[in-house]
Amino acid sequence: MKKVGVAILGLGVVGGGTYRILESHREFYQKTQNVDIFVESVLEIKREKALALGVPEEKIASNIAEVVADPDVQIVVEVIGGIEAAREYVLAALHAGKTVVTSNKELYCKYSHELEAAAKRHNAGLYYEGSCVGGVPIIRTLLDGLQANGIESVVGIINGTTNYILTKMGNEGASYEDALKEAQALGYAEADPSSDVDGYDASYKLSILASLAFHTKIPLSQVYREGIASVSAEDVRYGKQLGYVLKLLAVGKNTAEGIEVRVHPAFVPASHPLASVNDAFNAVLVHGDAVGDVMLYGRGAGELPTGSAVVSDVIYAATHSENKYSPFKNSEEAEKDVKFVSDFKSCYYLRMTVTDHAGVLGKIASALGKFGVSVGELIQERNRGAGTATLVLVTHGTAESAIRNAAAKIDELDIAKVDAVLRVAF
Amino acid sequence: MKKVGVAILGLGVVGGGTYRILESHREFYQKTQNVDIFVESVLEIKREKALALGVPEEKIASNIAEVVADPDVQIVVEVIGGIEAAREYVLAALHAGKTVVTSNKELYCKYSHELEAAAKRHNAGLYYEGSCVGGVPIIRTLLDGLQANGIESVVGIINGTTNYILTKMGNEGASYEDALKEAQALGYAEADPSSDVDGYDASYKLSILASLAFHTKIPLSQVYREGIASVSAEDVRYGKQLGYVLKLLAVGKNTAEGIEVRVHPAFVPASHPLASVNDAFNAVLVHGDAVGDVMLYGRGAGELPTGSAVVSDVIYAATHSENKYSPFKNSEEAEKDVKFVSDFKSCYYLRMTVTDHAGVLGKIASALGKFGVSVGELIQERNRGAGTATLVLVTHGTAESAIRNAAAKIDELDIAKVDAVLRVAF
Repeated sequence: MKKVGVAILGLGVVGGGTYRILESHREFYQKTQNVDIFVESVLEIKREKALALGVPEEKIASNIAEVVADPDVQIVVEVIGGIEAAREYVLAALHAGKTVVTSNKELYCKYSHELEAAAKRHNAGLYYEGSCVGGVPIIRTLLDGLQANGIESVVGIINGTTNYILTKMGNEGASYEDALKEAQALGYAEADPSSDVDGYDASYKLSILASLAFHTKIPLSQVYREGIASVSAEDVRYGKQLGYVLKLLAVGKNTAEGIEVRVHPAFVPASHPLASVNDAFNAVLVHGDAVGDVMLYGRGAGELPTGSAVVSDVIYAATHSENKYSPFKNSEEAEKDVKFVSDFKSCYYLRMTVTDHAGVLGKIASALGKFGVSVGELIQERNRGAGTATLVLVTHGTAESAIRNAAAKIDELDIAKVDAVLRVAF
Repeated sequence: MKKVGVAILGLGVVGGGTYRILESHREFYQKTQNVDIFVESVLEIKREKALALGVPEEKIASNIAEVVADPDVQIVVEVIGGIEAAREYVLAALHAGKTVVTSNKELYCKYSHELEAAAKRHNAGLYYEGSCVGGVPIIRTLLDGLQANGIESVVGIINGTTNYILTKMGNEGASYEDALKEAQALGYAEADPSSDVDGYDASYKLSILASLAFHTKIPLSQVYREGIASVSAEDVRYGKQLGYVLKLLAVGKNTAEGIEVRVHPAFVPASHPLASVNDAFNAVLVHGDAVGDVMLYGRGAGELPTGSAVVSDVIYAATHSENKYSPFKNSEEAEKDVKFVSDFKSCYYLRMTVTDHAGVLGKIASALGKFGVSVGELIQERNRGAGTATLVLVTHGTAESAIRNAAAKIDELDIAKVDAVLRVAF
């Protein structure tokens, strides 16, 4: 039986999960995959972490040079996270001809050109299923399951922290601040939650997924990004009243006009399959020109789910002899002939405070109409005692620029103040 | 660029879709997969069908011998369906060392041992993604996306026809007969609907999926099968009242007691992800020991969705040099040391007509209790004028045998008649 030695760099959440899965499933893989995969070494600054996991002392390496010099290591798993050390170590492993499996979305998103080139040069494998949507095998699906299709769109809920917060706000009417605090208490959100709540994490993943789906490099700089920190309980509630659920969506579209990639909160109709993706679950909806809609759903993060993705890559690498590289021209920036759409079309949700006088609604409708914006749904509620009303409306499909202009125009009227603008998807 | 010639056997629904996708995407695959895949020949008794699709006259083969003798054919796509001709042609292709891609669930389910052996002997590839759940890449996912996991269960809605009928019954209160007629009018059900409505189609697929998931041959003979033909609108309605949706479920479980494989109608809680899989859509929920729940959702049938699966296999075969065979000991019957559970546990829905007298409920509860069956939910409705009442109850988890015995006991009491017994999943 073929023997394959693995080194694990970093024993944090995902590294620990990877180690535990490999150890507990060694015999299972011998039986089911006809390969003996064993952990040859681990690299972890905090030795006590390794010892606590049960790693034998002699398997704890002192530095990356030792790991890559070991001829019994065929696959190096990078689960350190961050950029500096991770990039250096991955390049060292690739230069030594080792296959690399990484779950590092930021690294792969920002440096795929460099990593793919190094892998190719040294005939080493490079795998990154764990970088996107935890245990959900969306990358393998794009590469080997739906590759017969021209992919027209990839739309997903691909950040568990924000989905937990928005689920809490939607189901319990919690404020953003309270929901965030609870997510932090449960370990779903970090002390500095910016990477999640400001949409960075989802942007890295969308850049990777859209690049694969559309067969061209989508640099991070092209991904429009808006987080959930300014989402109010009020808007979640009004949306619910209109039959919508608020989600942090990652949207990638490939249309005749160009490619559109954006991460932002958006209302989703309650009957849509993505609307019922709750808590820390993730889902990705892919639309292919032959297959139509396909959705993959599962845990987007966590020790064992992400470990499952990492170990599945390890097994794939151990049981396939060919190394495949990014299936498109891989460069730091987008290819010159690829167009991007920035003024994308959507339906919009607007909430405004208006003076409670006759004729106000007409003036607002006419301001919207000036920019070609028409209204599909509307709620008006009187704010008793304040002399104002709250007006909530959902427009028909329109360009982002038209909404921005219309909102500015409405503010100029001095009879209304636009308090919130949110997109409505599907 | 590598050139790969394909022969398509049968130009029915899936064959036509396969042809159309390959023709329209040829340049796309050259660009994105670096391979030139072309249709070298088709075999179709009805020549006019081929001509109507735009197949050039000279590509229409006269017989299977001509197809397999053609050195430019590397991949043979079998989309004829049925057993006789399909089996003969597939074996002929494998014997000639051609890679075979098939969407034929009945053939692969019943003869995988023979086909896998022939493929291995002649070093030919054998792929069958199109055999299960249309365009949803569930087989690739089990082989290459979730293979790090011990799979504990595979539960799915894997027949579109029955799901269309049950959706109709659930949403509109239609009778089974009316819903079937509509499905036939729309082309979702065949004139003789038995293969779908009696659960054969789902059983073939479950046998294939469970074999892959549990790494051992699950012969069709082990799959318990019950169709939807005796489902009544009344039960669908009572289930709805209790918060359930009725689905034809395919359930595969691998537990310490053994393997359990069954296809039957079952109530699913309305909040469960499978409950919102409607119309002709399919979904499979896989539970892995590391990843937890992963669900795949999409179109389970149709020209282009199933064509997507077939062509994805063609591309995979054309771009991977290794042939992999069934990842378990492949035999006609189950391996000797594998246990199967037939007296499986479930919650149960019972509907009965009872005499409308005091004390009846107590007698029924005591009859159930004798077999260890306890009741979780209950509806009782008086049938005005008839001197009877309808009693609907949902039990806690219990063995199938206990329910059968309890139902027989209740019938013996002469105060109640059990009209319907249905399983409740999850």
